[in-house]
Amino acid sequence: MDTPAFARLPEPPYYAVIFSSQRTEGDDGYDAMAERMVELAAAQPGFLGIESTRDTQGFGITVAYFDTTESIAAWKANAEHRQAQAMGHRSWYEHFELRIARVERAYSKTSRGQPR
Amino acid sequence: MDTPAFARLPEPPYYAVIFSSQRTEGDDGYDAMAERMVELAAAQPGFLGIESTRDTQGFGITVAYFDTTESIAAWKANAEHRQAQAMGHRSWYEHFELRIARVERAYSKTSRGQPR
Repeated sequence: MDTPAFARLPEPPYYAVIFSSQRTEGDDGYDAMAERMVELAAAQPGFLGIESTRDTQGFGITVAYFDTTESIAAWKANAEHRQAQAMGHRSWYEHFELRIARVERAYSKTSRGQPR
Repeated sequence: MDTPAFARLPEPPYYAVIFSSQRTEGDDGYDAMAERMVELAAAQPGFLGIESTRDTQGFGITVAYFDTTESIAAWKANAEHRQAQAMGHRSWYEHFELRIARVERAYSKTSRGQPR
């Protein structure tokens, strides 16, 4: 099965930025920004992968993976990303939670297949 | 704003179980199991909170938070949870990724409000 939604990551350890958010109503430029941020994140040094989903109620979780906390700090400080963060605070999100975590173990499974 | 989708967590450090999955088609008992597993997880010693979302394509991310890796191991070994895991492997998921991570930092923001 083609599973483009899943990040293919190296063996741990690495770092996860876990971002959960409740969208406000209306697009207001959000979709284009979200697409651009994924593109921009993927171009950052130390970026490893990203997984993202949002339900019909506007509640979403995005997990971006990086090699080190230094790479995460650099991504946070990226100028274009900072503009998007400001718009997120101001307009796009009712509420969000951001958690930085060190991934220590990982497992994977494809149905009726072997673990990778 | 009422934000029941968000977990209210203590200050880090604590642990995250990041579970991303692609559902197979059809319910096949999935929704009832998922609801029961959230209830069961919440009753585990060391459980801190859970956030979960799935898009219309069946791609979902659930992050469950626990105080220690020992609590996560006990949850993994729970008998009723093990039955659900077996059904997940066999029927409910095309593919999944499971990552265990230590949350080191956390931020929170409500629109037009103060950071909590």
